[in-house]
Amino acid sequence: MLSEKDTICAISTAQGMGAIAVIRLSGDESISICEKIFRPAKPGKLLATQKANTIHFGSIYDGEKDIDEVLISIFKAPHSFTGEEIVEIACHGAPYIQQQVLQLLTKKGARLATAGEFTQRAFLNGKMDLSQAEAVADLIASRSEAARRVALQQMRGGFSNELVNLRMQLLNFISLIELELDFSEEDVEFANRTELTKLVDEIETLLQKLVNSFSLGNAIKNGIPVAIVGHTNAGKSTLLNTLLQEERAIVSDIHGTTRDVIEDTINIEGIGFRFIDTAGIRATKDEIENLGIERTYDKISKATIVLLMLDVNDPDDKIHDAISDVKKRLDEHQQLIVVINKTDLSDEPIIAERFTKSSFRELSGTDAIVPISAKKQRNIEALTDALLKTVNLSAIDNDEVIVTNVRHYEALQKSHEAITRVANGLHTGISGDFLAQDIREALIFLGEITGGEIQTDEVLGNIFKNFCIGK
Amino acid sequence: MLSEKDTICAISTAQGMGAIAVIRLSGDESISICEKIFRPAKPGKLLATQKANTIHFGSIYDGEKDIDEVLISIFKAPHSFTGEEIVEIACHGAPYIQQQVLQLLTKKGARLATAGEFTQRAFLNGKMDLSQAEAVADLIASRSEAARRVALQQMRGGFSNELVNLRMQLLNFISLIELELDFSEEDVEFANRTELTKLVDEIETLLQKLVNSFSLGNAIKNGIPVAIVGHTNAGKSTLLNTLLQEERAIVSDIHGTTRDVIEDTINIEGIGFRFIDTAGIRATKDEIENLGIERTYDKISKATIVLLMLDVNDPDDKIHDAISDVKKRLDEHQQLIVVINKTDLSDEPIIAERFTKSSFRELSGTDAIVPISAKKQRNIEALTDALLKTVNLSAIDNDEVIVTNVRHYEALQKSHEAITRVANGLHTGISGDFLAQDIREALIFLGEITGGEIQTDEVLGNIFKNFCIGK
Repeated sequence: MLSEKDTICAISTAQGMGAIAVIRLSGDESISICEKIFRPAKPGKLLATQKANTIHFGSIYDGEKDIDEVLISIFKAPHSFTGEEIVEIACHGAPYIQQQVLQLLTKKGARLATAGEFTQRAFLNGKMDLSQAEAVADLIASRSEAARRVALQQMRGGFSNELVNLRMQLLNFISLIELELDFSEEDVEFANRTELTKLVDEIETLLQKLVNSFSLGNAIKNGIPVAIVGHTNAGKSTLLNTLLQEERAIVSDIHGTTRDVIEDTINIEGIGFRFIDTAGIRATKDEIENLGIERTYDKISKATIVLLMLDVNDPDDKIHDAISDVKKRLDEHQQLIVVINKTDLSDEPIIAERFTKSSFRELSGTDAIVPISAKKQRNIEALTDALLKTVNLSAIDNDEVIVTNVRHYEALQKSHEAITRVANGLHTGISGDFLAQDIREALIFLGEITGGEIQTDEVLGNIFKNFCIGK
Repeated sequence: MLSEKDTICAISTAQGMGAIAVIRLSGDESISICEKIFRPAKPGKLLATQKANTIHFGSIYDGEKDIDEVLISIFKAPHSFTGEEIVEIACHGAPYIQQQVLQLLTKKGARLATAGEFTQRAFLNGKMDLSQAEAVADLIASRSEAARRVALQQMRGGFSNELVNLRMQLLNFISLIELELDFSEEDVEFANRTELTKLVDEIETLLQKLVNSFSLGNAIKNGIPVAIVGHTNAGKSTLLNTLLQEERAIVSDIHGTTRDVIEDTINIEGIGFRFIDTAGIRATKDEIENLGIERTYDKISKATIVLLMLDVNDPDDKIHDAISDVKKRLDEHQQLIVVINKTDLSDEPIIAERFTKSSFRELSGTDAIVPISAKKQRNIEALTDALLKTVNLSAIDNDEVIVTNVRHYEALQKSHEAITRVANGLHTGISGDFLAQDIREALIFLGEITGGEIQTDEVLGNIFKNFCIGK
């Protein structure tokens, strides 16, 4: 069993060779362990007597063998990330040296940290609540501007404040109900039922809004799934390359910061779109192709946006058929964007007239039809606009609280269910006992998010196991 | 043209996602650039007024947009790695965030550093000499204990001290010669020729020793090439796996420090051995196999050690033939280790008696014959001992100066040639003018190593281009 009292250590920088690497220790013994293996370049004070937030140059020794020249940074409890004594050792970035230093630390009494253990300690020591701790991992994993922004806001407590606000309203509510229960024999009504109903409606609306924000939050965190339907010769890969070029043109290619290439995920104005290629759809008796088509339908059903790629040279009836064919597979929450490719070979005004949305009775609501030339990069902006229209950008721009974490989403849903029971109970006039019970349940679920309610080791373990080591 | 006056910036930690990443700035504007984008968590003093070697918590802002929460470390000229003002920003380790911070720094006036530019500045600002600067890159690239140890010693000036010593002896010598030249018409001899000859011999010996150390140094740096000769069924891959397991058992598998896997390079007691598999050697008329055999001979000629793997079940004459066959391809500097594999199926005392070195008149000098079982891991230590015997371990253990850099090696060779000319000149009694000229040449070549002699941008460019960015 790993103890929370152990002094832990881990490599906190990315794996592999760099100019430097940082090895971090946290716990009561951090400084005394380093004292045993560090000799300052200018002999003088012990590390233990050095001030917090200072840096010291010297060497790491294992007995008489010198391992490396390093910089040592000292942070003192409780004013550190974990709330404990922290030492950071910046050594030369050879993986071999990193490993030697880490082994030496374990030999001198530190224990290798588990995934996310530094952040878990920050939570356990009251430096942040659980939703903030989870945002640390989201921030490190962020791959787009929107993901970074939402994670940073959550890490700074934006979401927690919203929850505190909700809990205060609920506590206010429950105190009124409980007061009534105390005087139940006297049949007083401290809480005006009309006002109570109004308050519960407000809370329900707020919870519903948070629950609803998850579809955007999830899209921001994981990218918005876009299924591309169309035959190989419709120009799917040319389009993806064109979109990728646009992104790269914006994010200038900085040497030394290789972009994390994710197959077919493209950032458009800070939002990640996850493009999923599918086989084409057409009636066939060939079994193997049918199997491919089944998979296509499956992918389509999981997409938020379906991008149907057609060829401008196809006759109208073929285009109409293709649109109807896909459209009947979509539900009301899915959006269709019909892309008419290869317009480079045709006359622009004629194309514009031919492909107005009103000419396609199959299209409805937020569906769009966009003629482009993927090859000549013509009208690509109209397509990216159509893609971005599916995203509630104003919510991001206004720093509204957006739920990105499935655990939070589930807790909010349960909390919302309990509050809905309260609303119904008020409507049907059930007793205060039952109302109070449902409100308490709603409070417990909200408490799970911030970790205010007691957390089992298992729950914490599940939350932190997906962190990287060293954080 | 990049200016040495620019403030430079780069990501100094390894590429990819980590818990944290460090971005480093160096130059006059380092602190003032950071001032523009950093807001301390506790509003207060400007960074410019903070003390050297202190750490400050706060946020990086681009106008009103906050990018990340960071720690900022301040180092002041001239007491920093480069000798300039240095700021290190430790941000969350998302590659996206690293890139955002780096872009922001360039927007505010910093320039992206070229490879090795921080270390180059350390050299130009007199913080280290050129051979020490080169050792920084070697240290970061070190993959074995011996490579780390030799690089660290060189970075700390061990090699430089040896050169300073040599230069002082040469300067002493040249001053005596020049004194003679001044009084040449009076035919005085300030420098006793016998003593001069003795001094030159000493210098020549020292230079020769350094030149000779390069074969060990090169082996330490790049691994010792070991050609394995033997048919597939001789158990070559089983042997490599067994050696790899031994290594892994020693270097405990620390989570989060993935070993840099290099194809077939195995660390044995801190020395890297680079195993090169070859096809077997046997007489054949088949053209394709002949081609393979040509390549085998080529690989053998480049190896320091040739490991001939045979099967214990082969009859004596076949074993003798195979040994003679390989032995005649080797020169006197190459060492042969005959490995007799599959001893698990035989009786140990009988094997020991059958495979004594004296029974194989083909073997000579440091050649060895080792019966093993790769599968059962029997007698593997005898094999690793035989491999290690080829390395001058005492030179490493005694921290002798070992030349690892081909540029240094070539300069030492040229210096040695000039000194040899001096020795010959003393022997034949040539005039002081010529002696002085050769000594000056020797001094120039030694100066190239430490960078004391004027270096062209081209030479410096060649040296630093192989560094990583951020160092």
